[in-house]
Amino acid sequence: MTETVTPEAAVRSVALRAREASYELALATRAAKDAALHAMAEALLARATEVIAANAEDVARAESGGTPASLPANLVDRLRLTDDRLAGMAQGLRDVAALPDPVGEVVRGSTLANGLELRQVRVPFGVVGMIYEARPNVTADAAGLCLKSGNAALLRGSSSARSSNAAIAAVLRDAVASTGLPADAVQLVPGDGHDSVRALMRARGLVDVLIPRGGAGLIRSVVEESTVPVIETGVGNVHVYVDAAADLDKALAIVLNAKTSRTSVCNSAESLLVHAAVAGEFLPRVVKALQAESVTIHGDDTFGVYEGVLPATDEDWATEYLALDIAAAVVPDLDAAIAHIRRWSSGHTEAIVTEDLTAARRFTAAVDSAAVMVNASTRFTDGGEFGFGAEIGISTQKLHARGPMGLPELTSTKYVVTGDGHVR
Amino acid sequence: MTETVTPEAAVRSVALRAREASYELALATRAAKDAALHAMAEALLARATEVIAANAEDVARAESGGTPASLPANLVDRLRLTDDRLAGMAQGLRDVAALPDPVGEVVRGSTLANGLELRQVRVPFGVVGMIYEARPNVTADAAGLCLKSGNAALLRGSSSARSSNAAIAAVLRDAVASTGLPADAVQLVPGDGHDSVRALMRARGLVDVLIPRGGAGLIRSVVEESTVPVIETGVGNVHVYVDAAADLDKALAIVLNAKTSRTSVCNSAESLLVHAAVAGEFLPRVVKALQAESVTIHGDDTFGVYEGVLPATDEDWATEYLALDIAAAVVPDLDAAIAHIRRWSSGHTEAIVTEDLTAARRFTAAVDSAAVMVNASTRFTDGGEFGFGAEIGISTQKLHARGPMGLPELTSTKYVVTGDGHVR
Repeated sequence: MTETVTPEAAVRSVALRAREASYELALATRAAKDAALHAMAEALLARATEVIAANAEDVARAESGGTPASLPANLVDRLRLTDDRLAGMAQGLRDVAALPDPVGEVVRGSTLANGLELRQVRVPFGVVGMIYEARPNVTADAAGLCLKSGNAALLRGSSSARSSNAAIAAVLRDAVASTGLPADAVQLVPGDGHDSVRALMRARGLVDVLIPRGGAGLIRSVVEESTVPVIETGVGNVHVYVDAAADLDKALAIVLNAKTSRTSVCNSAESLLVHAAVAGEFLPRVVKALQAESVTIHGDDTFGVYEGVLPATDEDWATEYLALDIAAAVVPDLDAAIAHIRRWSSGHTEAIVTEDLTAARRFTAAVDSAAVMVNASTRFTDGGEFGFGAEIGISTQKLHARGPMGLPELTSTKYVVTGDGHVR
Repeated sequence: MTETVTPEAAVRSVALRAREASYELALATRAAKDAALHAMAEALLARATEVIAANAEDVARAESGGTPASLPANLVDRLRLTDDRLAGMAQGLRDVAALPDPVGEVVRGSTLANGLELRQVRVPFGVVGMIYEARPNVTADAAGLCLKSGNAALLRGSSSARSSNAAIAAVLRDAVASTGLPADAVQLVPGDGHDSVRALMRARGLVDVLIPRGGAGLIRSVVEESTVPVIETGVGNVHVYVDAAADLDKALAIVLNAKTSRTSVCNSAESLLVHAAVAGEFLPRVVKALQAESVTIHGDDTFGVYEGVLPATDEDWATEYLALDIAAAVVPDLDAAIAHIRRWSSGHTEAIVTEDLTAARRFTAAVDSAAVMVNASTRFTDGGEFGFGAEIGISTQKLHARGPMGLPELTSTKYVVTGDGHVR
């Protein structure tokens, strides 16, 4: 006899267990949570053979083209776990243990005129759902960040990493339980298909927040379908604007760094805008330097006179290449740069290069993105660079969290009001 | 020839105008915004005849049973505008002008190890949609709060108030424009039917946040259907727990105040839980006092022995009565009270009455609601009482804002990062 459990019932069951666990986690001391994080790190190393064996199944499936269909070599590489990568995951968990506990922080407080004592205190969300793609290391990262912030984690990785994720979750659950916290602090969402993802997205009331991490398609589908509140992360159509008053040496260094230091990340530059007043001097230098780094330039008419520059279409202005490509245009003035950015940006990061304080003030005030850089590479939009110690993702939405998210962004608050029989 | 404009196109058109206006509003100084708020207040008074004439059309329609069908008398009363109510609306706008400007506040800042200067600054959301029911005064309140926080407002009141809302919006738009800010800072969403509400809810990317204010049905439908991020407000299934160590005089005063001082508001109590150790002494007193105030008690078996107490069902534990009714139960201990609240509360406000510090600590830590009161009436959960000066609503969600929302809760943030040619 076959049991028939619908995806909704399966998700409901793990979510209710997560809720129960979340009650204990919310009350856990920092010491208890840090002990669990260290136990998780040690267990990953102690049971490395088991995890790597499970990972080998995923890699073999990915290479042989089973179910799902075979993956390209770079994705197989991202999927593969080694002793080094496991050591990195363990170190990540220890790093999270070393960070301050966001829970219990008093965000604001006062004594009201009537003597009531008001405190706004950070508290965990409760149950956090994460939906993510290929890399199995996210399973440990997300579990650690959620646990430290007092949240129970419901994790849904990609089906290509299902054996790795199951092994990692089993190791982490045992480790958490060994320290006296509930194993259900870490759970995988059961099921492989989109049905179970959909059930997770519709579990409003059972899951407090969903954080998708992955490509634009994944994030769009979660945002469209989810009734659970979502924190949107990571799509970056990022611009660098070189102002009339730019130091062109700084501008060249920033453009090259923003475009070429790492192309596959959301904070790398995808479009270059240059003020007409410096185009004559800057364009030959920047075109040459970018082409020397094998960057393909998709340019407007002014850029188009240089050899090798392809004509840009509206699609280029809109595209997050995540590759050695850049869209490039000359603009008549600062406001035209701002207008271009308003039209095409995804609101992640934009930079101005200028020595003119008035221009910098106008750009930083008028450009409505999660991060606005002045004379700095867009690559600095990063939780590590910002000093947050850990990053769950980079929010490109305006509600709740915007920009790199650290542990405090995985919490809510509540008001605690203390009186002595006060009535209105 | 009839123009055919779909609800989507109509909403898109006002939303794009709101976006344009939001660019100017984001850069407006506090002085400019406060001048606009004072002009709005003066205009409402100067053009009172016009607004009240429009309101008379709504009132007549509501009383005669045209379209929509005739309203009950208490709703007709809420719909009616008088000189006094207009004066109150004008004063509300002046009060908002007197509040600090949330925009530009530096929420956090530091200089990074590499010399980059990091600032997290409050910025407006951009375009805020409000969906609300009967009272036309919300049109002025919401417009004022949005303008002060630098947001363009897209307002969708109830169709029963459509003439009043149109007149108020016209007055406010003229007043805003007279001070040099864009009239499109305040717009009504065109159309009367659910189609236009639906178009507003699906306008992701055009509208930054939607705030529904009204009954549970309205809020549920917005939460379910909206792809625009929503801030959920105001449903309160609120509990008062009288602990074993309660001062029973304080407990009696708090229960009466929480239940009877105003029944139609979300922070009034709907359920009473009493520790078994004090039930013998407290129940006769509280039953008598509540019944003297015409409160109907829906009680468990222990309460059921008192005359006039009706038997409580699961529906009673779940109900936000907003009336002179209360559900009441005796619990064996504090943890049973917490478990009851976890099962039935809407997460708005709960109170414990106790002189026992350990019990108070346990209750405030374990109860996951927007506000948790110790020895104080639940009626204190209110932006005015909390000293926020203005209140957009009371959030019962965990993302972005929780509890009473003031002006800062109508903003997002961005990171401004200043360097001197910094690259990674």
